[in-house]
Amino acid sequence: MNAPKHMRGVWLQNQTIQVRDNLDVPRPQDNEALIKVLLAGICGTDVQLRRGYYPFSGIPGHEFVGEVVSAPGAQHLIGKRVVGEINIGCGHCALCAAGLHKHCSQRQVLGIKNRDGAFAQYLNLPVANLHEVPESLPDDKAVFAEPIAAAARILEQVNIGTEHKVIVIGAGRLGLLIAQVIKTTACQLQVITRHDRQRQILNQFDIPAMDEQHIPTQEADIVIEASGSPGGLQAAINAVKPTGTVVLKSTYAGETQLNFSRMVVNEINIVGSRCGRFEPALSLLQENTVDPTPLITSRFALSDAQRAFDMAASPGSLKVLFQP
Amino acid sequence: MNAPKHMRGVWLQNQTIQVRDNLDVPRPQDNEALIKVLLAGICGTDVQLRRGYYPFSGIPGHEFVGEVVSAPGAQHLIGKRVVGEINIGCGHCALCAAGLHKHCSQRQVLGIKNRDGAFAQYLNLPVANLHEVPESLPDDKAVFAEPIAAAARILEQVNIGTEHKVIVIGAGRLGLLIAQVIKTTACQLQVITRHDRQRQILNQFDIPAMDEQHIPTQEADIVIEASGSPGGLQAAINAVKPTGTVVLKSTYAGETQLNFSRMVVNEINIVGSRCGRFEPALSLLQENTVDPTPLITSRFALSDAQRAFDMAASPGSLKVLFQP
Repeated sequence: MNAPKHMRGVWLQNQTIQVRDNLDVPRPQDNEALIKVLLAGICGTDVQLRRGYYPFSGIPGHEFVGEVVSAPGAQHLIGKRVVGEINIGCGHCALCAAGLHKHCSQRQVLGIKNRDGAFAQYLNLPVANLHEVPESLPDDKAVFAEPIAAAARILEQVNIGTEHKVIVIGAGRLGLLIAQVIKTTACQLQVITRHDRQRQILNQFDIPAMDEQHIPTQEADIVIEASGSPGGLQAAINAVKPTGTVVLKSTYAGETQLNFSRMVVNEINIVGSRCGRFEPALSLLQENTVDPTPLITSRFALSDAQRAFDMAASPGSLKVLFQP
Repeated sequence: MNAPKHMRGVWLQNQTIQVRDNLDVPRPQDNEALIKVLLAGICGTDVQLRRGYYPFSGIPGHEFVGEVVSAPGAQHLIGKRVVGEINIGCGHCALCAAGLHKHCSQRQVLGIKNRDGAFAQYLNLPVANLHEVPESLPDDKAVFAEPIAAAARILEQVNIGTEHKVIVIGAGRLGLLIAQVIKTTACQLQVITRHDRQRQILNQFDIPAMDEQHIPTQEADIVIEASGSPGGLQAAINAVKPTGTVVLKSTYAGETQLNFSRMVVNEINIVGSRCGRFEPALSLLQENTVDPTPLITSRFALSDAQRAFDMAASPGSLKVLFQP
């Protein structure tokens, strides 16, 4: 399969998105693969990028499933369906040496930092970042590998067991995946919701939902903040019991005010949590332990990027997909 | 030894301190002991209480060494020198049942919350809170048991070893004790200082000091914030490396602004840390592993409370003691 020289894609600059038809198709280096994007998902971070959370100019998008078109150093991958980890470290620093590429200060991040992303017909990634998608896994599920990996990251950072009361604040596109991942621990789980559609989906997975008015005070062992709003952090601090843990999954622009003395007096832990490994995510999808498909709100062509982003930013919207 | 009915003490109300000569000497219940205060120390929290950090009215003070005067249910303690843990839980709730009295929502805290404290001639504490002071340990050291226990609490919460770069921000009355406690781990320790006297004391203990201008960026595995100022928290977040841990020891009034997205992206942990167990503190003192005596800035009679508090609140001041 040969790639054309030009492609259609979404271009983000100065908090504005445009559809462009004459973007250069990237040329893979020896250690890279050119991938034809089959499906790509809009994430909360993409919505925040358009709001100016981070000054990225280029093609956004970091959740995708695609097909390898060319790979000069890994011909066996051509024609294979893949998903891809999004961080590319410098490979030389102490953090990269420790396996923490995702924290390398010189890193590129697909569609977020110094590297064009997935809201286009093609993208380029190092072969080392790619994971083959099992044949049995449809595109509609595989496209969720990245956010499910981010959800599963929590389990690497915090010990969660059957004895723990766990609250997930926020049942949006990330919160609903986190809820399904956390349910695998058999803990006492409750998810704070705002919208009927969220409650329906949680009900479908047999996960208890709760209105935000009813969040208990200082009762939860672990609270996972996935609301995407600064108020969620204060709610999390209120809900966690002394010596408990708050996991922060949301990023948002600007600074947030917090009473830190309370954190000290109650000896609360706050854990920042970002990207995770793809292997457990693909397993969870293949076993059908996590089913992301009820989250798919709508699908758009790249030419409809403006509407797709507006839909993704609207309250109660879940996963919006691009079909390039 | 019989106690009089009235005593001299420091009274805090509406952010004002007064010396009163006609305070009632407390009467111990069956499970309590009346203690004649031999020495009491002014802590950063006391200074903050006068600034309105928490609306306490009564006798402040929670660092003390004293002599048991009466103990209806524990006569063998009479005449013994003791130090005392400062939290008294309800004894019935789930947190108390889990041994977390210090986090009981109904707790009293000596000189801080719903219980008169140590800046007086006498105080009252449950016998269960008391620890006998070894004969070889002078009052000047024993009076530091409480803050050293608070410093040693960090070692229960965070694993610190020889491979870790650790920065303590703040070399005040708590920071200098924390530095000595952390030094026992043989980690790569640096302490951020502001005053010559702090550097002299650190030098005496062979602990490297550093000016705040030279705090490294994203290099430390663990940063301990003990500066007592909100700026210290931002400095700690700047100094810790990705996936590292910030330990918060300072409490201060009001809210602090922070960019939490950075915490998420760098997967930083923040751990609130408060009171600790007295056993390790007394051991550290007895072995002379921690020597708090260079921190003693001055001693005052209770009648001089105003000057004592002003001295404790002045920059560069370390431990101010009351000799009731």
